[in-house]
Amino acid sequence: MIKKYVFGTPFDTEAMVAQIPAESDAVPYFCTDTSDGLRFTLELESSDAIYGLGESVRGINKRGYLYKGFCSDDPNQTETTNSLYGAHNFMVIEQKERIFGVFFDCPSLISFDVAFTYFDKLIVSTENKNINVYIIDGSSAYEIIREFRNAIGMSYIPPMWAFGYTQSRWSYADRDSVRRVVKGHRDLNIPLDAVYLDIDYMERFKDFTVDSKAFGDLEEFANEMKEQNIRLVPIIDAGVKIEDGYDVYEEGVENGYFCTDKDGKPFEACVWPGMTHFPDFLNPDARLWFGKKYKILTDMGIEGFWNDMNEPAIFYSQNSVDNAHKLVKKYADKEELTLKEFEELKGYFGSRQNCDEDYSGFYHNTPQGRYCHKDLHNLYGYNMTRSAAEGLAATEPHKRFLLFSRASYIGMHRYSGIWTGDNHSWWSHILAELRVLPGLNMCGFLYVGADLGGFGCECTRDLLLRWLSLGIFTPLMRNHAACGTRNQECYQFENPQDFKHIIDLRYRLIPYIYSEYMKAALNGDMMFKPLAFEYPEDETARHTEDQLLLGNEVMIAPVYTQNALGRYVYLPEDMTAVRMKEGNLSFEDMKKGHHFVEIPENEVVFFIRAGKAIPLCKSAESTTELNKESLELIGSGNEYTLYADDGISKDYTNPENYRKLTK
Amino acid sequence: MIKKYVFGTPFDTEAMVAQIPAESDAVPYFCTDTSDGLRFTLELESSDAIYGLGESVRGINKRGYLYKGFCSDDPNQTETTNSLYGAHNFMVIEQKERIFGVFFDCPSLISFDVAFTYFDKLIVSTENKNINVYIIDGSSAYEIIREFRNAIGMSYIPPMWAFGYTQSRWSYADRDSVRRVVKGHRDLNIPLDAVYLDIDYMERFKDFTVDSKAFGDLEEFANEMKEQNIRLVPIIDAGVKIEDGYDVYEEGVENGYFCTDKDGKPFEACVWPGMTHFPDFLNPDARLWFGKKYKILTDMGIEGFWNDMNEPAIFYSQNSVDNAHKLVKKYADKEELTLKEFEELKGYFGSRQNCDEDYSGFYHNTPQGRYCHKDLHNLYGYNMTRSAAEGLAATEPHKRFLLFSRASYIGMHRYSGIWTGDNHSWWSHILAELRVLPGLNMCGFLYVGADLGGFGCECTRDLLLRWLSLGIFTPLMRNHAACGTRNQECYQFENPQDFKHIIDLRYRLIPYIYSEYMKAALNGDMMFKPLAFEYPEDETARHTEDQLLLGNEVMIAPVYTQNALGRYVYLPEDMTAVRMKEGNLSFEDMKKGHHFVEIPENEVVFFIRAGKAIPLCKSAESTTELNKESLELIGSGNEYTLYADDGISKDYTNPENYRKLTK
Repeated sequence: MIKKYVFGTPFDTEAMVAQIPAESDAVPYFCTDTSDGLRFTLELESSDAIYGLGESVRGINKRGYLYKGFCSDDPNQTETTNSLYGAHNFMVIEQKERIFGVFFDCPSLISFDVAFTYFDKLIVSTENKNINVYIIDGSSAYEIIREFRNAIGMSYIPPMWAFGYTQSRWSYADRDSVRRVVKGHRDLNIPLDAVYLDIDYMERFKDFTVDSKAFGDLEEFANEMKEQNIRLVPIIDAGVKIEDGYDVYEEGVENGYFCTDKDGKPFEACVWPGMTHFPDFLNPDARLWFGKKYKILTDMGIEGFWNDMNEPAIFYSQNSVDNAHKLVKKYADKEELTLKEFEELKGYFGSRQNCDEDYSGFYHNTPQGRYCHKDLHNLYGYNMTRSAAEGLAATEPHKRFLLFSRASYIGMHRYSGIWTGDNHSWWSHILAELRVLPGLNMCGFLYVGADLGGFGCECTRDLLLRWLSLGIFTPLMRNHAACGTRNQECYQFENPQDFKHIIDLRYRLIPYIYSEYMKAALNGDMMFKPLAFEYPEDETARHTEDQLLLGNEVMIAPVYTQNALGRYVYLPEDMTAVRMKEGNLSFEDMKKGHHFVEIPENEVVFFIRAGKAIPLCKSAESTTELNKESLELIGSGNEYTLYADDGISKDYTNPENYRKLTK
Repeated sequence: MIKKYVFGTPFDTEAMVAQIPAESDAVPYFCTDTSDGLRFTLELESSDAIYGLGESVRGINKRGYLYKGFCSDDPNQTETTNSLYGAHNFMVIEQKERIFGVFFDCPSLISFDVAFTYFDKLIVSTENKNINVYIIDGSSAYEIIREFRNAIGMSYIPPMWAFGYTQSRWSYADRDSVRRVVKGHRDLNIPLDAVYLDIDYMERFKDFTVDSKAFGDLEEFANEMKEQNIRLVPIIDAGVKIEDGYDVYEEGVENGYFCTDKDGKPFEACVWPGMTHFPDFLNPDARLWFGKKYKILTDMGIEGFWNDMNEPAIFYSQNSVDNAHKLVKKYADKEELTLKEFEELKGYFGSRQNCDEDYSGFYHNTPQGRYCHKDLHNLYGYNMTRSAAEGLAATEPHKRFLLFSRASYIGMHRYSGIWTGDNHSWWSHILAELRVLPGLNMCGFLYVGADLGGFGCECTRDLLLRWLSLGIFTPLMRNHAACGTRNQECYQFENPQDFKHIIDLRYRLIPYIYSEYMKAALNGDMMFKPLAFEYPEDETARHTEDQLLLGNEVMIAPVYTQNALGRYVYLPEDMTAVRMKEGNLSFEDMKKGHHFVEIPENEVVFFIRAGKAIPLCKSAESTTELNKESLELIGSGNEYTLYADDGISKDYTNPENYRKLTK
């Protein structure tokens, strides 16, 4: 049962697809204070748990910290990062006497003080007095989440090839670099389905252009790659370069499609291309215009995109540059610079990136009126990606494209997936990825994955092996690294056959992973589940935050510490351990309870629940070559209902897509 | 057997106290390359382990990353931080065919590529061609470490009161603030022995001055505190404020006691007081002069100090300010600032802190000649703290003072302890503290501890409870937090009796902790030992990196994850689990093997080894009030040999200090 409570006159974020009438009484369970912004307080007992908040740091149970719903470009994702790239304001709150869900549909900054200031209080607060709050009652976490997911609409479904292993780097500079990456994998028979093109494939970072010196005729090159069953996936950034003669820029200015400053002039901000304008994705005309530009690249044979820098990230605005110039002028004539003046200058330059002042300095023209960006901040990346999805659908309505975004808000899950942004080559970020998966699934984001091996910092062989051992289970499986970091393609390390064996296992699991993905998407279920949701009566399971259930049959428990012999695993029921060693599988029946499982870094262990079975195929070098028909069932059960389709069209509801497999 | 290998003409760091003749043959085990700086390469097998490197990030086994020996003021201690505040270049290398120790006595930057670039190589490299390398052969890690410790001299021994619980904050602003802290503890009977005074106790951050407006007559106030069994522990920073009329500044200039720039003028750098000069602690006259200044404060009844900012930290030099002014002048007259110019300015201001250019820009006048700071960088904090220790000893030769430092190098362990610098309120920093302890002990640093609750970021109640549950075992037990962060004194949180019970347990353990500390110091042993050293044949113990042995009887295994029910503990032999719950102890005999141990956040569990016993006293509000005579033995053993002395004089070797306790 989902109920809607309206405060003020909220902006319609279109997070919801369901039409829900507004209640006239007060929000239940919470104590509501409207005197200064909005403030919702819930009393907690020590055994209460709070799940959700999508892309956020810390544990599966969010207790004990302060989170902020505000799409943030901050690559330093530590325990004390309050906000990440997405703003996902949905929680399931499990209390002694009840369990319920709550969604704060707030397009601007919102704070979640989850037993942080007071150990027995959840305090949700926002300056914005115009928001919708939804309360979902139900008898279990799963039931509440299914109801919420139905209300927000079906999750994005990518093409099947997007479940293959993919390789990225900022940036493969030219065709030959990409060819070397493909050859590096193919020579060692390491499966690979796609190579990403980061910003340098463009001509001076201009969206929908291609640097022809480096990439020649992209259509030709895309075809060359496709002959090797490799897709090219280019990046699209939010900012449109200000450059005379650049059609996207000129059309945008001419038609008023860019965000404007307080005087109504296009707002100028510096990102990778230098000074840019931001398309006003909250203006439906601008959204459609930009979305249709993707056709420039799909016409060249491109079938997938990643949308980046769409929080939007701002290095600095023209306003900042002008103010810096004023400061500089002010101090130039002094005989010497005092310490205070030096510090003022240093402070000014150091505080410009993604600053409040800039987010308050531009505006959107929406059908609901002109709004300051700050008040709709969380909707920007969402609507950029909606723009792409709608543009692509307008071009080819029956075809699935790969699409994922960095910034996001609930609602965007209908249009694309997300990657979890600029992480680091940190062991702690393996665990962080595992822990974020259920929260993302709760909020509708099913096509998800982290930069395997880590984006920033230096990756080591053992880190990549261990991270891939989690990554083989996530729908988006991409190895990505930042400019200036060590090369981290699998073949760059010693004994690359260890990587091949792990990625081969992924390909053997693709029929299962795809099937469970589709079931989760079509039924509004989670693909990755906390043990707490499946075994709510089991106190140990409720507190296990480094293992997950994958679909209805599998439990994963990857190693996330360096130089480890293995790890402790808690089995909440009897299970079959599946061990991959040098490409071969072996099986061991294990009893419910605590176990220490030895897992060398070149082996993978996962678990199949009692009485369940999962399908495996043979591996291949790409999803295209995968024989998904010849399946073997493993596990102690005797049957599995497989979802399978052609992987590219949108005929999801055909009953023939389901097939019962038996041993 | 310790052997010395000399490259070039090394600066005598005085890390060693033993006179060791130079060998004439090549360094064994390593392949040495002297063509470009120095480069020592050791082939590794996958089972080889590398221990040591003192204050450094990551695990107890250092395999898999790149560490740098270079004292660094970088408060963001993450997994990929290459260098911390101390430079401790000693390792024990355990290979299949041998175990040996190696100490690279290098006062400048040195890199340890521990199976990072190549998974089967340890590569140690330095630009400096003038260093001593020591190789220590032996039959066990303990034997090698004892030999090394004997060669570097006995570790610092603090007064007994320094084993009490202590409270700090940047900064308690005045007498009343300190009084409130003491009252906060005393009112709730939470034991407390000292309160630290951070930089604001000084008059405009000038060393050896007191802001009399805020602190009145410090002698009077120190006495008032001492009546409550509280010691005040002021900070001393490395930089001496440039201010006419300030005697320390004027004496330093007059006598040439400050580091000089290339032209021989005192080098100017900005730190907390604004522009300062750095005392040239490598000049023995300057060292003695500065060290004797501590008497100004000991004459007021002060008995302990912490030396800070002595890497030395540099916010920016006068040179940077001048260059910034030139840049500003250069751009002021332009019609507008281009993006490139904005970025140049931003880049300049953002890269000044602790920059290479500054460390290359000043000089030391040492008895061994004039040296550029960069070439002796790692010795600066070491010699500042040696200055303090020698100054204090000159004043009161028979009395122990509390003294610890932020920057350090092996050799400094003879003069003081260290705290592990500016950490964060991160759960991962609990584990980081546990893991760094054995490495510090190996290098002679026994009086050690981290800022409990975390220095930067916001502490939560549960984080502090869990951190204290480790902190009760470390010699230095200090709760410290940065300016601007949430108050984190125990009494600031709900249910403060939970904190009291945990700190009471510390006080009950003080006779044991002190006894084990003294044995480790007097015998050249480690107080905190990896399980790998004690159970080298046990593969699981060798890979256990989140438990430690404390002294000869105890094993600790604190909880370091949020919202945890407890944790897994590996017992490498039968042990007695001791559980503290609401101030009461209970005991459980546990068998060798893997266990999941439930540990609520207000309880503490530790382990006593089979056949061993440890003494406990009753708790008290301070060490002064502790009845250390009335001891009870707990554990399955029947006797314990206690070391006890008067806790303040230096008569360590008196045989009467040892007492056999029996049940």
